[in-house]
Amino acid sequence: MSFLRLALAQIDTCVGNIDSNVEKVLKYAARAKQSGARMVVFPEMTLTGYPIEDLALRATFRTAAQKAADLLASKLSEEGLGELYVVVGTVGFDESAGKPRNRLLVLHEGKSVLQYDKHFLPNYGVFDEFRIFSSGNKCELLEVDGIRLGFAICEDIWQDGGPVARLAKLGIDALITMNGSPYEEGKTHVRLSLAQKRAVEVNAPVVYVNQVGGQDDLVFDGGSFVVDSDGTLLERSAMFAEDLSFVDFDNSLKKQKVSSIAPKLDADEEVYCACVVGLRDYMRKNGFKGVCLGLSGGIDSALVATMAADACGGANVYGISMPSMYSSDGSKDDARDLAERIGAHYDVQPIEPLFKAFQSQLSLEGVAAENLQARVRGVIVMAYSNSRGVLALATGNKSELACGYSTIYGDAVGGYAPIKDLLKTRVWALSRWRNRAANAGVGIGMLPIVGYEDSQKAKAPQDGVLIPVNSIIKPPSAELRPGQKDSDSLPEYDLLDRVLEAHIELAHGRADLLADGFDEHTVDTVMRLVDRAEWKRRQYPLGPKVSAIAFGRDRRMPVTTAFRE
Amino acid sequence: MSFLRLALAQIDTCVGNIDSNVEKVLKYAARAKQSGARMVVFPEMTLTGYPIEDLALRATFRTAAQKAADLLASKLSEEGLGELYVVVGTVGFDESAGKPRNRLLVLHEGKSVLQYDKHFLPNYGVFDEFRIFSSGNKCELLEVDGIRLGFAICEDIWQDGGPVARLAKLGIDALITMNGSPYEEGKTHVRLSLAQKRAVEVNAPVVYVNQVGGQDDLVFDGGSFVVDSDGTLLERSAMFAEDLSFVDFDNSLKKQKVSSIAPKLDADEEVYCACVVGLRDYMRKNGFKGVCLGLSGGIDSALVATMAADACGGANVYGISMPSMYSSDGSKDDARDLAERIGAHYDVQPIEPLFKAFQSQLSLEGVAAENLQARVRGVIVMAYSNSRGVLALATGNKSELACGYSTIYGDAVGGYAPIKDLLKTRVWALSRWRNRAANAGVGIGMLPIVGYEDSQKAKAPQDGVLIPVNSIIKPPSAELRPGQKDSDSLPEYDLLDRVLEAHIELAHGRADLLADGFDEHTVDTVMRLVDRAEWKRRQYPLGPKVSAIAFGRDRRMPVTTAFRE
Repeated sequence: MSFLRLALAQIDTCVGNIDSNVEKVLKYAARAKQSGARMVVFPEMTLTGYPIEDLALRATFRTAAQKAADLLASKLSEEGLGELYVVVGTVGFDESAGKPRNRLLVLHEGKSVLQYDKHFLPNYGVFDEFRIFSSGNKCELLEVDGIRLGFAICEDIWQDGGPVARLAKLGIDALITMNGSPYEEGKTHVRLSLAQKRAVEVNAPVVYVNQVGGQDDLVFDGGSFVVDSDGTLLERSAMFAEDLSFVDFDNSLKKQKVSSIAPKLDADEEVYCACVVGLRDYMRKNGFKGVCLGLSGGIDSALVATMAADACGGANVYGISMPSMYSSDGSKDDARDLAERIGAHYDVQPIEPLFKAFQSQLSLEGVAAENLQARVRGVIVMAYSNSRGVLALATGNKSELACGYSTIYGDAVGGYAPIKDLLKTRVWALSRWRNRAANAGVGIGMLPIVGYEDSQKAKAPQDGVLIPVNSIIKPPSAELRPGQKDSDSLPEYDLLDRVLEAHIELAHGRADLLADGFDEHTVDTVMRLVDRAEWKRRQYPLGPKVSAIAFGRDRRMPVTTAFRE
Repeated sequence: MSFLRLALAQIDTCVGNIDSNVEKVLKYAARAKQSGARMVVFPEMTLTGYPIEDLALRATFRTAAQKAADLLASKLSEEGLGELYVVVGTVGFDESAGKPRNRLLVLHEGKSVLQYDKHFLPNYGVFDEFRIFSSGNKCELLEVDGIRLGFAICEDIWQDGGPVARLAKLGIDALITMNGSPYEEGKTHVRLSLAQKRAVEVNAPVVYVNQVGGQDDLVFDGGSFVVDSDGTLLERSAMFAEDLSFVDFDNSLKKQKVSSIAPKLDADEEVYCACVVGLRDYMRKNGFKGVCLGLSGGIDSALVATMAADACGGANVYGISMPSMYSSDGSKDDARDLAERIGAHYDVQPIEPLFKAFQSQLSLEGVAAENLQARVRGVIVMAYSNSRGVLALATGNKSELACGYSTIYGDAVGGYAPIKDLLKTRVWALSRWRNRAANAGVGIGMLPIVGYEDSQKAKAPQDGVLIPVNSIIKPPSAELRPGQKDSDSLPEYDLLDRVLEAHIELAHGRADLLADGFDEHTVDTVMRLVDRAEWKRRQYPLGPKVSAIAFGRDRRMPVTTAFRE
């Protein structure tokens, strides 16, 4: 009879912060040991954080990671954890190709007893791994207590052939995978199906450990799991929270036992949590304690402010109402009401005197005058950011960004844009969901995305409403000229968002969109807006490249990194 | 005896503008035929423009390119050019991999007689080709009039092995290469050495046709050439200008005859031209007729304004002096003097009343107050851009951008940054070079970068000086507080630039920089500034990615593209 208790350590690492990542591995390894685990598995590139982008190309960084792995192996032994098999990810180096490797190490009794380098290097969408790594080509087994284990890293199980096919031939009792799989709506199901397919292929259980937490503009959702050789779900960790869970492999049993399975989240709850985790971790990893943003009384800034309060507590949110001569009284009231409900600071900075000062020199008309109002607001938001040391938040949603319905250096000002990937109709849906949750007792800071010490931020809901209903139901307006409505310039959002979804997410071109049943006028309007906006968004800050390294595309360094040479 | 006259068509293509690219190919093919050429060779991805980035992934775009290639072949025949062998680049598709190909076609008598797909796909620095293409694996010869020709595309000759090694074995009389090799200082020599090495390897002449012109932040310098089998330079086209030149291959001769060899440019002239071409083509390809920028009286804005006048004529340059209470009279005089010398419009917009209006509401201090001044200027520059429809230019240089010595949404405002890749010491050197050229009679618009109809922009120099000497020699200052000097915050530029060059271009880390002989205090200061600035530069506009396609990293679309589905 062979038996193995395995721990899935679903942790949040920070790119470049090798010391804190190592410390977290030690902490979770000790907890795993205490619970009787023989092996603990961490996410992809545990020690370096993931994705490290061009940081992998710095020799000093690789050397630091190498030293950290050696030190970790020794420390595990020193702390009485030498018997535990600790599976961590890090960066390696391929001398012959002169390129880094995406590496898995199994540490045991003070040293590395198995090294596996990722075979398939994703280089699509958000991934640039072929750019920075060379491919591994070896595939070894590790036998622990009579159980034969095979290993793979993330993309290795997304491609047919390669290491999984080889492991299937060799014969294994379990396939261990470490992953850095970013959140995307609906992906939970895709990952599960994939693991089930591989489980059948290798005729053994598959362990899927994913990282959790925000890193730059990616959010890792965790949701680690284990499936049996026939695809039965044996274990699933919660989404958006650090977690240590366990699974027991027992070769004398035909079927493994089901351990704990975290319940699924509601679709809107899942996306709301992804946005809050992204913002919270971006702030935490970059040293921001608070945020500032313009509060217009509209739904976009209301949702962003509420997310920010959930991320860092209302007391750390600075809401600025910046009414113009075109702002309605209703808008100002809604902004103040929202700030009160989420416990945010609330200041009023009228822009009319500032706008008039500029106009006495510039005498602008039309769109130039509208942009001027937005840019005066941008200057005020950045003044709060600079003088209080808080992160400026841009409140634009995906529909308006896609259509260019915003002012560069105006409302687009900010270091982080929490809802930049949400269509307008989704903004409304998430606002309604957040109010439903509040009505059910989930106040500010009380979301189920624990894992950090956030209790002092919690705040019970006032009267079951966080976001003023008026902000949700009124027709959207930029309020930059009298009686202006978004629908003067854009198709109605219900229609617009369906076209954008097909055009952007599904890459439907003009002919496809017509075949989808959208009318020609709408299709041409939207495509023209999107093309133009995409061009505008990428304008800045181009300049000619005349040397080996210019700023911009050459150095793909992560934004969030604690690494200093 | 075998004889072949080959034409090198060094043209400027525009990404996505298939129609205009095809038209240009027809025009150059006709000129080549008139001069007795049997074959004409165009640059990489001629029909689509280069680099097309993720545009290659759009099926509608690939279909359009396919149709254009077929149409081009027919049109060549119709116009009596069917006998001419026309070598063009385009995008193909690999059905089995489901990925596009970087393709060369030889058109002859109304059809494609040879197809070659690029083998080596660069995926480093500015290149992302592995992301979008699959690799070719075939290598065919084409015999024309008894001369055996082999083909390769750009990166194929930068890597050992692959198609060149196979062609060497097959035996060829000439190697034809089409290239999209971006400008980088000193690269001319590297390309020549490489071609000489390949010529010896294949024991035959090598033809190197490069594209010319600006495309987004890349500048292609042309400089096409031919080397004989022993490495002798047989032909070299001018840099930075479209060109059609010829070389005759005669198998009865042991050595081919040297045709015309364009003289080399002075090092500063070369970089200055690269900057002007980058700006001119960015404007032209994006439909801008003019520019606006702040003129401080300092050297950065003076050089940018002069480059802009060289690119589009002084009458299309709007210079705005925006003095604060800290601006010296000398600065204002220098700004006006510069505008007069280059024939630019000149407006004065004092920022003091605007600054005071903001301060009456915000009462900012320290850096926040300094940033406020810069941002008020940013609003004015954008107002000019919006109301006149001109491109706003950012005037930051590489030294200050590297060190974060600029204000986001302030002086960093602009759609194009002409000197973003020039260190400060280079800014001075180029300013001095431009004055020397003016003194030698090269007025505004009279640079040797012809190829477009720029004659009406030419303007003879006033008194042999374009850039006021005072702007070149005075100590740099941001003039945001009394008596401020750049050297209060940064090491002296002579020293700073040497450290930056080693740290950025040569990727020297801390230990390397100390070994280079820089003192520890300077090294630590500069590295801290660069790390912090890199982080700040990449802050905006991050937000969480919750769907398949977010804005930002997912869609790597070119900025400049005329393609509309």
